[in-house]
Amino acid sequence: MASYKLLLLPGDGIGPEVAGGMQVVLDTLKETGLAAFEIETDLVGGCAIDAHGRPLADETLARAKDADAILLGAVGGPKWASVAYENRPEAGLLRLRKELDLFANLRPAICYPALAEASALKRELVEGLDIMIVRELTGGVYFGEPKEITTLEDGSKRAVDTQVYTTAEIERIAHVAFDLAGKRSGRVASAEKHNVMKSGVLWKEVVTKVHAEHYAQIELEHILADNCAMQLVRRPKQFDVLVTDNLFGDVLSDIAAMLTGSLGMLPSASLGAVDASGLRRALYEPVHGSAPDIAGQDKANPIAMIGSLAMCLRYSFGLGDAADALDGAITDALAGGARTADIAGEGTNPMGTRAMASAVADAL
Amino acid sequence: MASYKLLLLPGDGIGPEVAGGMQVVLDTLKETGLAAFEIETDLVGGCAIDAHGRPLADETLARAKDADAILLGAVGGPKWASVAYENRPEAGLLRLRKELDLFANLRPAICYPALAEASALKRELVEGLDIMIVRELTGGVYFGEPKEITTLEDGSKRAVDTQVYTTAEIERIAHVAFDLAGKRSGRVASAEKHNVMKSGVLWKEVVTKVHAEHYAQIELEHILADNCAMQLVRRPKQFDVLVTDNLFGDVLSDIAAMLTGSLGMLPSASLGAVDASGLRRALYEPVHGSAPDIAGQDKANPIAMIGSLAMCLRYSFGLGDAADALDGAITDALAGGARTADIAGEGTNPMGTRAMASAVADAL
Ligand SMILES: CC(C)[C@H](C(=O)O)[C@@H](O)C(=O)O
Ligand SMILES: CC(C)[C@H](C(=O)O)[C@@H](O)C(=O)O
Repeated sequence: MASYKLLLLPGDGIGPEVAGGMQVVLDTLKETGLAAFEIETDLVGGCAIDAHGRPLADETLARAKDADAILLGAVGGPKWASVAYENRPEAGLLRLRKELDLFANLRPAICYPALAEASALKRELVEGLDIMIVRELTGGVYFGEPKEITTLEDGSKRAVDTQVYTTAEIERIAHVAFDLAGKRSGRVASAEKHNVMKSGVLWKEVVTKVHAEHYAQIELEHILADNCAMQLVRRPKQFDVLVTDNLFGDVLSDIAAMLTGSLGMLPSASLGAVDASGLRRALYEPVHGSAPDIAGQDKANPIAMIGSLAMCLRYSFGLGDAADALDGAITDALAGGARTADIAGEGTNPMGTRAMASAVADAL
Repeated sequence: MASYKLLLLPGDGIGPEVAGGMQVVLDTLKETGLAAFEIETDLVGGCAIDAHGRPLADETLARAKDADAILLGAVGGPKWASVAYENRPEAGLLRLRKELDLFANLRPAICYPALAEASALKRELVEGLDIMIVRELTGGVYFGEPKEITTLEDGSKRAVDTQVYTTAEIERIAHVAFDLAGKRSGRVASAEKHNVMKSGVLWKEVVTKVHAEHYAQIELEHILADNCAMQLVRRPKQFDVLVTDNLFGDVLSDIAAMLTGSLGMLPSASLGAVDASGLRRALYEPVHGSAPDIAGQDKANPIAMIGSLAMCLRYSFGLGDAADALDGAITDALAGGARTADIAGEGTNPMGTRAMASAVADAL
């Protein structure tokens, strides 16, 4: 059994708890001979600010570059609300994404049958929902320059953010989306605002070209981002793979996540390019945030974190069988009635983070 | 009875039909002595491209500046998909917004009791929903420069859009939102991405300051735009007035509109500043688009257009009573069973655009 080098960055709020919950699953994976890991743990976000004065120390970044994969809990919280912009907790996460060139953010939005009732949408609209959002993660308005606030002569201010996309950036994310669609239903929707944004014009042009040249067998639809948001609410099952830029991806993936009724259950993968030796850098993290309001109370749902580990097995280590086993264990634990507070129906008695993680480990 | 000068710009697709449907309502308003109008009609969008080679002729803009208010149907359609970016149909609408400085876009999202079942969301989540989205409309990434696509040495391209906001731009839209909230529930939520965007940092700072200095009695909540999109789906009734920038407003207002189950029914107002003589420039338009797929078939729902006229009576002419009467007529017509195809339940026989407009006029 190969052993992989994982860097674990629990982060802030409920991050440490959900990461802790994952430990029992890691142990079980090892015991059952499915996969073994060497784990280093380090700081990111608010806790790194507290320890080092900045949200990602250079040594942590070096470790991240050295690891086979990174598992991250969550960053941020009100405690660091007044930290300078350059040093805010989120900057640690953004630096990781950028420095490791993790340009492809995969966010599956799956509606678990056991939880369809928890969605705000009518059951028939979300039952069986399985969307894969492919969000560009290292470009766009998140990183474009200039990005600044200047003070004008009269003392008032002017803030600027810059959305930049190049052909190459769009091409590589388009390839990821079309490749994924080939293994799924064969359909891609690409969302932008080409009617208002030049980056949207280029986005549409490049996606169209990549499609025509390499993926003629895949069905491609272009959709305006505002309409896409509406359609996600109206008839979400019309989508399979949805590819979009960093900022629209931020919003659209959160909508898709919320549709499933189980935000606390959704994992994500942020992938780099495959290098000459066949390896790719990757970071896995739950879609949910640091949820400071319930931190430290053994209430948080660890399934998004465990699901992120399953994505890690699949995308970083090619352990599809182990990943399937783990995903199956999550479904089984849920079908067996295991519920944390966020997904418990009324009148039921929810279990804590550790108990839920154990339920998944047992099912495994 | 005063007579007001309206510029009617039916535009493309279903625009002319819904604008035509409004005519019978205008007649009834006059007959009943509620309000009278002098109406000029002109071209905008694709039809203006066909006639003049550009989506808004200078003469039309001059007429728009001269009118007491503008009523617009919809612009755009596949026919003009290959028109150059600078001349696309939407550019006509954007030019009107910018040249008339219509910075405040009011988009009410109301769930009509008779239609709660049509929402994708569970009835109890949307019944009684009444949100007012206040979208900044003349700034942000829609108009910031540079906005261009350049070709790099290797033949690949680089697209840039620029999001710019100044203190003054944020101040004036914040005032609109707080003033509206004072006449409603007294709550404002302000959405941005201050954790990623400098314009979000300035937005939050200025909204906070305007609130502290002028509106201490109003409740203010800051919310990240991605979380706001989620919360709109999860528990929409938590919002009353929601103020946000041009791009987030585009997406969030479309989500809110879709929640109501009746996109074809939602009006909008785009307002300028009140000038020294107490007047303000204003444009009113349905939230729905040009819907080319059903154009020319007498199928479109004219209620959004009629509701836009009601907003015009209220915000441009101070005719609150006439506006209430018209809004009431819409509710009555619906309660009486009038339905166009978009809101007809299964097994019912929908009426056409003209019949629906007459039903509202009769109720008036
Ligand atoms: C924490 C924040 C910077 C981040 C983002 O905006 O990308 C988060 O919302 C996400 O979606 O991962
Ligand atoms: C037609 C288009 C330019 C416009 C926008 O993006 O503002 C539309 O989506 C809207 O919301 O009014």
